[in-house]
Amino acid sequence: MSHFLKEHIQKIINPTNDEFEAIQSFFMKKRFRKRQFLIQEHQPVHEIFLIEKGIVKSSFIDTAGKEHILQFAASNWWISDFAGFFKQETSSLAVDCIEDAEVYAISYEDLNTLCAKVPAMEHFFRVKSNFGYVALQQRILSLMSKPAKERYEDFIKQYPGFIDHIPKQLIASYLGVSRETLSRLYL
Amino acid sequence: MSHFLKEHIQKIINPTNDEFEAIQSFFMKKRFRKRQFLIQEHQPVHEIFLIEKGIVKSSFIDTAGKEHILQFAASNWWISDFAGFFKQETSSLAVDCIEDAEVYAISYEDLNTLCAKVPAMEHFFRVKSNFGYVALQQRILSLMSKPAKERYEDFIKQYPGFIDHIPKQLIASYLGVSRETLSRLYL
Repeated sequence: MSHFLKEHIQKIINPTNDEFEAIQSFFMKKRFRKRQFLIQEHQPVHEIFLIEKGIVKSSFIDTAGKEHILQFAASNWWISDFAGFFKQETSSLAVDCIEDAEVYAISYEDLNTLCAKVPAMEHFFRVKSNFGYVALQQRILSLMSKPAKERYEDFIKQYPGFIDHIPKQLIASYLGVSRETLSRLYL
Repeated sequence: MSHFLKEHIQKIINPTNDEFEAIQSFFMKKRFRKRQFLIQEHQPVHEIFLIEKGIVKSSFIDTAGKEHILQFAASNWWISDFAGFFKQETSSLAVDCIEDAEVYAISYEDLNTLCAKVPAMEHFFRVKSNFGYVALQQRILSLMSKPAKERYEDFIKQYPGFIDHIPKQLIASYLGVSRETLSRLYL
């Protein structure tokens, strides 16, 4: 039985041991190495991932070849190409490892079967999605209304545990500023 | 029985008539006039709103007094200060009417009671939240990676039905461009 998975789920719901055994059976533990892809661009998106260890990012490569970081994820964060996953379309994002990672993966079919079988998990994923929505809304307001220095401060608040593990040029890409602008923000 | 509410919900789930009567009892029909506020800034956020008729916007006023539009909503869209609602904190957004509106409102307590009582509604709101999340993700990528002209084209695709009802200066604010820049995009 995975203590990590159980503790993660118990932050929102409190399944019985039997329910938890059922829940766990829908997840597959996977390991990825630094720079390895969980999802490549223009491919079907089969799974969403809960990170147990390591650091993973999702990013978008624009037509000029520039990488824009959408999200970082470390322990207890979920990551995927959610648009591709929920619409069951091919991915527009790439998802890859900044550090070696251990994750729990669940497929689209299994997610829906699990929610139908264990209604508390439907509640779990609704709450998770609501808070994910709210975090993205904050990000949009930050992008629209705040100068780079305040966006950097918001970023530090949002990723307190693992900011030191993320290369500076990736933080700059997340914030939408140059590496040089980011250096000035540290002073 | 509200045909509008029933049709809206039936896009995702298919409740029985008895279930639908129960569902409907949790919603309250409300009417607002043009310029009237559904939610004012720095107030408790009691409800989320499903628009039946009219046009509503949510926006953020920055410290310099500039308005940034987060969302427009017309028939069949949901709107609120979702951060304030789901975290049960005071609002950072204002939500007000661009045109007279008729809406269905549901409170935080009633939303949770309804989801516990009618599990299909938990599914409904999970699916709604997932697609809302995906739409915000697209908006972030659009803001980060696209020039104003492409952001305008994305906007037209996202709001096909009611773009002609939204004043141009509000569209400019949504896109994060000046009114003059927006005028040039029309040419």
